[in-house]
Amino acid sequence: MLYLIGIGLNDEKDVTIKGLEAIKKSDEVFLEVYTSKLQVSVERLEEFYGKKIIRANRTMVEQDSNKILADAKTKNISFLVIGDPLSATTHVDLILRAKENEIEVEVIHNASVLNAIGITGLQLYKFGKTTSIPFEEGNFTVETPYDVLRDNLKLNYHTLMLLDLKPMEGKFLSISEAIRYLLKIELKKNEKVFTENTMVVGIARLGSKDEKIKFGKAKDVMNFKFGDAPYCLVVPGKMHFMEEDFLKQYRI
Amino acid sequence: MLYLIGIGLNDEKDVTIKGLEAIKKSDEVFLEVYTSKLQVSVERLEEFYGKKIIRANRTMVEQDSNKILADAKTKNISFLVIGDPLSATTHVDLILRAKENEIEVEVIHNASVLNAIGITGLQLYKFGKTTSIPFEEGNFTVETPYDVLRDNLKLNYHTLMLLDLKPMEGKFLSISEAIRYLLKIELKKNEKVFTENTMVVGIARLGSKDEKIKFGKAKDVMNFKFGDAPYCLVVPGKMHFMEEDFLKQYRI
Repeated sequence: MLYLIGIGLNDEKDVTIKGLEAIKKSDEVFLEVYTSKLQVSVERLEEFYGKKIIRANRTMVEQDSNKILADAKTKNISFLVIGDPLSATTHVDLILRAKENEIEVEVIHNASVLNAIGITGLQLYKFGKTTSIPFEEGNFTVETPYDVLRDNLKLNYHTLMLLDLKPMEGKFLSISEAIRYLLKIELKKNEKVFTENTMVVGIARLGSKDEKIKFGKAKDVMNFKFGDAPYCLVVPGKMHFMEEDFLKQYRI
Repeated sequence: MLYLIGIGLNDEKDVTIKGLEAIKKSDEVFLEVYTSKLQVSVERLEEFYGKKIIRANRTMVEQDSNKILADAKTKNISFLVIGDPLSATTHVDLILRAKENEIEVEVIHNASVLNAIGITGLQLYKFGKTTSIPFEEGNFTVETPYDVLRDNLKLNYHTLMLLDLKPMEGKFLSISEAIRYLLKIELKKNEKVFTENTMVVGIARLGSKDEKIKFGKAKDVMNFKFGDAPYCLVVPGKMHFMEEDFLKQYRI
């Protein structure tokens, strides 16, 4: 049996009762450590769950997943994912391959950035497509986030931008870098999609007790010290007065 | 203290440890019963949580929320929401009013349809704006869902459609009705956005152990017997081969 378990966004107590029960009856527990960042140490998870946790990096999950699947044929295996287990392509692939191998799979859902972002007061059903801002590689700048933003804004939708991260290397694209990334594409394309005066919401450590949310002009949010990762950035589209009212509390 | 707690999509064990701890130390526990449908009885929740639950309907939350807020000034109040607590406008409003009244608020997140829909294998970041299909009132047909679908498809995005429900009256818009709703607008607007041959995914009881997912032409999914509510409908945009591969298992 393969349990794919979302452990939520913050600490050891964000797992569901159902998730914890599955972990407790598992012979092996893996934790996917490359698509997100925990707000708590693995040791604390181990203590709370009462289980030893094997850290699974990208290579392990994408290339050595045969081992995980082979084990799941005869044992109970928990594969823990920060947030919700279905947010990353590789996990969906794992389910597919488990099913091909006639291994029973149970998915145990949890919160993810996609719904926790509602804490900004922006209505979830008014968000358009989500996009990601990557680390720049050499001189090549991927313009997709700018294009997605433009398409969403045309339709008055809000845009959630996830900021790239390499947790294994301790590298996290900052809110400031993300804003400069968009400004750089604006300079090049000049479509008046994103300027220094565009109103944005910067969010650090979403879903944790010390999450930090700041709403203001891009040039001001860019200079705010958000503290530790992970980060995301929202560019609101057309706002309802209640959304504006709510965002006021986060005004820089 | 006001705790806004998501209890997840399925049963009493989908609450998080953090959520359950908050419930246990609450003096009063409300359950919002008008924006979604539980897969489990309130009695079973009460037994598992060890607390009496007060059912809160729309009138109570929108009009009599002063009482909930007044209580939260001096007592610990839990306000439970099926799925994630921030998916409905009224709950965001409750937070805003609590803060205006200097009442401490803690939001405890959980899974919602917005991320659990990943179980279709369709990538979450490839979904455009979410839309809802309402019950028809008289001869007036709201065309928004059709328009949102058209805009999403133009950009190759997937579209999640939530189907209207009035749980207090036991009324749930069925997948068949939703498809006929879209076909009816197609007949009128004739923009070739949604036809009998459009590939769709119908989902019943998402996130529960007996969730039912069917992928096929609109005319075939329309005739499938999905069983009990709640329901949603997805119209995939441009699919990656892995998404197609995954959906095959649900083929009608």
